[in-house]
Amino acid sequence: MTPGDSLRRLREAKPLVHQITNYVVMNETANATLALGALPVMAHAREEAGEMARLAGALVLNIGTLSPAWVEAMVIAGQAANQAGTPVVLDPVGAGATAYRTETAKRLLAEVDVAVLRGNAGEVATLVGADAEVRGVESIAAGLDARDLAGEAARTLEVVASVTGPVDHVSDGERTVAVENGHPLLASITGTGCMSSAITGCFLAVRPDDPLEAAVEALVAFGVAGEDAAAGAQGPGSFHVALYDALAGLDPETLDGRARIR
Amino acid sequence: MTPGDSLRRLREAKPLVHQITNYVVMNETANATLALGALPVMAHAREEAGEMARLAGALVLNIGTLSPAWVEAMVIAGQAANQAGTPVVLDPVGAGATAYRTETAKRLLAEVDVAVLRGNAGEVATLVGADAEVRGVESIAAGLDARDLAGEAARTLEVVASVTGPVDHVSDGERTVAVENGHPLLASITGTGCMSSAITGCFLAVRPDDPLEAAVEALVAFGVAGEDAAAGAQGPGSFHVALYDALAGLDPETLDGRARIR
Amino acid sequence: MTPGDSLRRLREAKPLVHQITNYVVMNETANATLALGALPVMAHAREEAGEMARLAGALVLNIGTLSPAWVEAMVIAGQAANQAGTPVVLDPVGAGATAYRTETAKRLLAEVDVAVLRGNAGEVATLVGADAEVRGVESIAAGLDARDLAGEAARTLEVVASVTGPVDHVSDGERTVAVENGHPLLASITGTGCMSSAITGCFLAVRPDDPLEAAVEALVAFGVAGEDAAAGAQGPGSFHVALYDALAGLDPETLDGRARIR
Repeated sequence: MTPGDSLRRLREAKPLVHQITNYVVMNETANATLALGALPVMAHAREEAGEMARLAGALVLNIGTLSPAWVEAMVIAGQAANQAGTPVVLDPVGAGATAYRTETAKRLLAEVDVAVLRGNAGEVATLVGADAEVRGVESIAAGLDARDLAGEAARTLEVVASVTGPVDHVSDGERTVAVENGHPLLASITGTGCMSSAITGCFLAVRPDDPLEAAVEALVAFGVAGEDAAAGAQGPGSFHVALYDALAGLDPETLDGRARIR
Repeated sequence: MTPGDSLRRLREAKPLVHQITNYVVMNETANATLALGALPVMAHAREEAGEMARLAGALVLNIGTLSPAWVEAMVIAGQAANQAGTPVVLDPVGAGATAYRTETAKRLLAEVDVAVLRGNAGEVATLVGADAEVRGVESIAAGLDARDLAGEAARTLEVVASVTGPVDHVSDGERTVAVENGHPLLASITGTGCMSSAITGCFLAVRPDDPLEAAVEALVAFGVAGEDAAAGAQGPGSFHVALYDALAGLDPETLDGRARIR
Repeated sequence: MTPGDSLRRLREAKPLVHQITNYVVMNETANATLALGALPVMAHAREEAGEMARLAGALVLNIGTLSPAWVEAMVIAGQAANQAGTPVVLDPVGAGATAYRTETAKRLLAEVDVAVLRGNAGEVATLVGADAEVRGVESIAAGLDARDLAGEAARTLEVVASVTGPVDHVSDGERTVAVENGHPLLASITGTGCMSSAITGCFLAVRPDDPLEAAVEALVAFGVAGEDAAAGAQGPGSFHVALYDALAGLDPETLDGRARIR
């Protein structure tokens, strides 16, 4: 399987990707999921979160605007997903910024079997106990190379760690893959990290048995779309619009040749 | 009255359209309402939902990201609207996907006098007890022609049923109108169903005594805007942007001639 | 200091701007904040609202989709901000439309030391007890000139009052400044008032000791961006997109010369 193969399979299967995510980016991650070719559904009530997670091809948990009721729903959905064999992505937005975010991310990792942890370096460093400066939802990890951080996180937290930044590093603890696709404009709009987590869920839904590959392929696809979107962009607004066009326009035939993986 | 007449009246009256809707599309339905020429307001707290509904020209209830507190607010607002003579639109997003959504949609239909039920075929089929496959918030109705479904829903649920899809069918139980305006790109972005419900609320606010006509005119206007938006679109992102421009640019003079109604 | 100086400082310091705002515009105000050059963070849980406010360079409170839990968080965050010396902006969205909104805005003004109150004429008139017609979140103040209203609000409420409209008026009670930058298309999309409050927070973060100047500079910057965005816009959708490009493209070198201040 290659990124192109997985994208082709995804567009045929149109997996349902259940997202319990933050208010800021819900529309954005839903549209990114649709543009790629999967079906998004948002459902956060305790009354239905478990049922929806069991129906889904993947579950994405994102703590960007967390509150107690939503955290409970994430635990319920995560555990239902685990029972049903639905793979789970966790995006620990802002872990390290406040105690509540750090504790919630740790709780979710403890109570839910997470297949892929997708975060920035500061968030992931916080979760492995390394030094990190986290300002709001932006962060700068200190003292640990991003590649080493991904491997360390994978081993310590028993997940596939997908640490995104100027270069992305994805590790299962044994093998670490660097993805160099992407564009600086991705950092100019809010929610691109969240979108990459949603897209990781989309790929995971069609490759549930290989979360390392799924996470890498998702970042290749999203990075290539970012490159395409940047081509005609005048700034963050027009880039944002072009990003959905580019996701929808991703060509499985050429995707593999454009992957910049080390 | 024709679609063009109603649009002209709407832009003069600028009715207030109170929406208790989902987190994914709030910005989108507010901007669609504004672009068309009405005034959106979102208010979901039990402390003010009834008061706002009484002030409004129409109330739109949408269960896309429902939770118990929001459902309570919908009941309060719906009953206040009924008392004040404010017409109510219900969008039963995802009815059929989970028990909670199905039960909530039925509860709202039981406790609130709904003027127009606007949903996709699977959602509406679920509510009349027909077979349907609902995946998340997407659906495929089985075993019942969409035109028949609209009529059946109108009679059973005592509403005007507005069943949207590649061709839309609107029925009051006696008369059923098919609307063929629209474009496949409308299905490429999230929230276009929700937008069509909001726009139905806008037309209903200026035609409260004829919900069948209001629902048809809303789908004509939205469908024509979709056709215009598709003209220069490169994909779902640019289509989405162009859709607001097209709604604002709808011309009451030419709208009637472009209606494709059977 | 001039608008250009403050913008330059803001882009160097990249202050964290904590926003507890409404569901409709969260993505929009986050992206406007980022496009301008600051870092947005949304955090509304009582468990972290105070901690985040203490970390931030400014706090923006916006009651556009208020509910009791969110109002509690606004009080907690506002008081933590006051203790930490973090300046606070209040956007009383819809004050005057419902009793709950009016009472909440008054409560926040009473319990939190607000540096800048940014609202439309109807909202601000409501808070000083003047006659106003507020329809949903739109309003028309009656009986009081907007310039006089700003001065009156500043004196009565002990804030810098930033009353926006076709011409904006900012007053500290002694001095009142009119800002004539902007474009009618800003009224064609939802959330531009909320964005102007967020941007006021961004400028306040780098000019905490001069809230009058910060508020004026924010409206100049936002107004100039609106003028630039309008240049190629086909309607509200394309204007909205261009607005982010324009905010990111604001040039500190030319900004002062384009300010239309009286």
